[in-house]
Amino acid sequence: MSKQQKTAISPTRVENYPEWYQQVIRASDMAELSPVRGCMVIKPWGYAIWENISRTLDDMFKKTGVKNAYFPLFIPMSFLEKEAEHVEGFAKECAVVTHHKLEKGENGKLVPAGELAEPLIVRPTSETIIGDSFARWISSYRDLPVLINQWANVVRWEMRTRIFLRTSEFLWQEGHTVHATKKEAKERTYMMLEVYRELAETILAIPVVCGEKSESEKFPGAETTTCIEAMMQDKKALQAGTSHFLGQNFAKASDIRFQTADKTEEFGWTTSWGVSTRLIGGLVMTHGDDDGIILPPRVASAHVVLLPIIRKTGDADAVLSYTAEIAEALRQKTYHGRPVCVEIDSRQTGGARNWEWIKKGIPVRVEIGPRDMANGAVYAARRDKGHRDAVSMEKDRFIDEITSILDDIQENLFTRAKAFQDENTHLIDEKQDFDTFFTPKNQEQPEIHGGFAISHWCGSAKCEEAIKKRLNVTIRCIPQNMEQARKADPGKCIECGGPSPRRVVFAKAY
Amino acid sequence: MSKQQKTAISPTRVENYPEWYQQVIRASDMAELSPVRGCMVIKPWGYAIWENISRTLDDMFKKTGVKNAYFPLFIPMSFLEKEAEHVEGFAKECAVVTHHKLEKGENGKLVPAGELAEPLIVRPTSETIIGDSFARWISSYRDLPVLINQWANVVRWEMRTRIFLRTSEFLWQEGHTVHATKKEAKERTYMMLEVYRELAETILAIPVVCGEKSESEKFPGAETTTCIEAMMQDKKALQAGTSHFLGQNFAKASDIRFQTADKTEEFGWTTSWGVSTRLIGGLVMTHGDDDGIILPPRVASAHVVLLPIIRKTGDADAVLSYTAEIAEALRQKTYHGRPVCVEIDSRQTGGARNWEWIKKGIPVRVEIGPRDMANGAVYAARRDKGHRDAVSMEKDRFIDEITSILDDIQENLFTRAKAFQDENTHLIDEKQDFDTFFTPKNQEQPEIHGGFAISHWCGSAKCEEAIKKRLNVTIRCIPQNMEQARKADPGKCIECGGPSPRRVVFAKAY
Repeated sequence: MSKQQKTAISPTRVENYPEWYQQVIRASDMAELSPVRGCMVIKPWGYAIWENISRTLDDMFKKTGVKNAYFPLFIPMSFLEKEAEHVEGFAKECAVVTHHKLEKGENGKLVPAGELAEPLIVRPTSETIIGDSFARWISSYRDLPVLINQWANVVRWEMRTRIFLRTSEFLWQEGHTVHATKKEAKERTYMMLEVYRELAETILAIPVVCGEKSESEKFPGAETTTCIEAMMQDKKALQAGTSHFLGQNFAKASDIRFQTADKTEEFGWTTSWGVSTRLIGGLVMTHGDDDGIILPPRVASAHVVLLPIIRKTGDADAVLSYTAEIAEALRQKTYHGRPVCVEIDSRQTGGARNWEWIKKGIPVRVEIGPRDMANGAVYAARRDKGHRDAVSMEKDRFIDEITSILDDIQENLFTRAKAFQDENTHLIDEKQDFDTFFTPKNQEQPEIHGGFAISHWCGSAKCEEAIKKRLNVTIRCIPQNMEQARKADPGKCIECGGPSPRRVVFAKAY
Repeated sequence: MSKQQKTAISPTRVENYPEWYQQVIRASDMAELSPVRGCMVIKPWGYAIWENISRTLDDMFKKTGVKNAYFPLFIPMSFLEKEAEHVEGFAKECAVVTHHKLEKGENGKLVPAGELAEPLIVRPTSETIIGDSFARWISSYRDLPVLINQWANVVRWEMRTRIFLRTSEFLWQEGHTVHATKKEAKERTYMMLEVYRELAETILAIPVVCGEKSESEKFPGAETTTCIEAMMQDKKALQAGTSHFLGQNFAKASDIRFQTADKTEEFGWTTSWGVSTRLIGGLVMTHGDDDGIILPPRVASAHVVLLPIIRKTGDADAVLSYTAEIAEALRQKTYHGRPVCVEIDSRQTGGARNWEWIKKGIPVRVEIGPRDMANGAVYAARRDKGHRDAVSMEKDRFIDEITSILDDIQENLFTRAKAFQDENTHLIDEKQDFDTFFTPKNQEQPEIHGGFAISHWCGSAKCEEAIKKRLNVTIRCIPQNMEQARKADPGKCIECGGPSPRRVVFAKAY
């Protein structure tokens, strides 16, 4: 055996992190780029993850009183213009529908025809079109709160795209609520942020920092944007979900008014919040290793793959029926609200088959050969351990313990990711240390350096801008759930040295 | 009491059927038109129906081995052109994206900018864009069959729209499969048609005729289009789902080739199949009465509403807690795979509240007042019976029997609809009878006449066209599951008198 362990993914993370990411996606068979610029095809193995995320989240939303609805894909151009910051934020990158049919042109080729009187925008987000409905639905305080969510596709014409992380079209949910008071709307904003934190940490096994964005990083039109920020294995931050307190900005833009209990008229207070298929990119970059993705069991496309090994033709029937019996027993078990999902792969391709499932990141692989059968055993491997680290287990014990094995994998993935985040999070008070922290030390791996710097900031956009320009580092959030930062110890701004009321989280980001 | 029973919906079905439909939708709070031409807003009460349909159908698909995936919203114009009939069928009514941003024009108003080199079509259906992926995924017979479904929004720029029935944007699922043989693809086509029949009849309580479309009514590019056709209460047909055998047409257009077991190369055989939010329109028109929609329990947004009646302030606590206790007990019950879904409406608006729930079509309404409580009883009304037809029931018996009450309503709705379809289905062999059948008799209700005519047809498009032109009647299908039509008794074409091999179903249609 050579010293250098062979890995399934080339390049490795250390060799070339961005390329490793693309190769992991390809090897996992989760998704591919499409012939439509910046749009992806989500293949069954990837889409099943999105189904698990959306079902879990949908249940969590409904427990807080939210109901689902569906609004038009298209937004009249004039609607987008209603909120000044909003149009500013989205006009630069949107798909514009200008015609409603195709006709044969002079050379026999199709050309757009039937020009629309007013162009339509393919929704980049739906505040304005949903606001139009809300204005009709709401007339009295008795109609409030309105708590609506939509599962939908949205389009933002991104110039540089990366599969799952930044695509022109993506799938998401967008929640939109209206409240009678500012207090209630603010509470809802943080309630949904907490739902996202819970999803990220307990389902996706991704530890996150929760907090508020600075002025310059806010959602266009929001008063406050709150977010969950995760750390990827290249130590960059990924914004994994946002929840916005919109004040009365969109209520004014859409004319959402209501009569209060004491007969005065007021504008509603609104919120919006969303997560997207980007989370799948976050999963890959949090848990993947040099053999591919590792799927946390609670969100995995499938939990267990059974790999029958047939050495002689005569063994086939017995091994396959032993395998089917194990599959059936596993499927009777419930893991986290759904039946244990079992795949059987009967192709006889030797090691290649095993490696395929490693690259797909299935939590548990089980080889079943004639000898295992003779011993009433199985040969089980966990994806969160090394690929040689398989153990022979008594079959019945394996079946009995499957849900605790899955829970153990889930917990292990979270613990590992949390330790990584903690190791790479530092309180930094000196400008020079800060700059060193965010400068690659080893020119051979320029993509992996830095981390979260918890540093003082005076609050000025100028300092923020200077840091961004010099280091390509941004304020990820003013954190809430971080012990180090919560101590409100005043200090000196890391950039200008001026007085700072509190520390914030700085990082390079996706 | 006046002889004329007052109804909640005005006009009634007999007075003005199309307007009745619009008013039922409005009164049910299921959906509304949006400011975007031809697009609708699906409100929570309507969207919950779609959620129930899609979850049920998704499980049925998965049992047949189908997996979900997601493909781009946009289709390059050149893709649409690959299949000649297909582009012909969809070019006339599609949303065309020509620009990727907005900029301030001379007058300060926004104008489209960033013109695309090639226009993009918002998918009207995804055969061509999915075919592009399939061509990449498939190289050997070992890769087949490929069985994929997509839940998505699609856009067809309809000129005359009607909410749920024909809208520019609608939600649907589209299944796309590739097979190694013609036989297998044909079997899949009919397998999915059977899934749709089962959905319609056992879940939506809508009886349907299954069969094949004639040449002129086929999906653009299909070899065979099969369909389920339902009869609405105005005796018109509604195409409620289609399953297409596409032969090798799209495989050739998209270059989906595979190597066979004996090393030759062949094009794949493909199918596609879909149902849409149109089904909700079908529900309304099959089961609605002059008081509004009636939701079949297996697909209802909620099953039971509890309406506490508080006569004196002192009663409130006791009645509300008695109500909550009943709600809790009901929610412990499972109806058709999901917990009994209970709403509590505590507003004290007297009769208005009761009527609101009648118009929303909830299967069971339960009034609970101090006297009911004293007797350990509830006052329950079924939506499929008259609105005065409520009964006092012992509370525990009501809770014990809720699922059989719901099943009884489900069955009653199907039986009623089936009887209506049977009554209005006639074997017609004379041209004059045929014309009379499809001509309004009473000028006051021109919208309600006709039905399904089971008549002979020679097979020529010319006769089909003549009938369509004269009576606005089309061949709905060459039926499979209709006793009368299955007898392959040759006869004379209802139009030209020429020899006809079999009867087909004629009707006016949505």
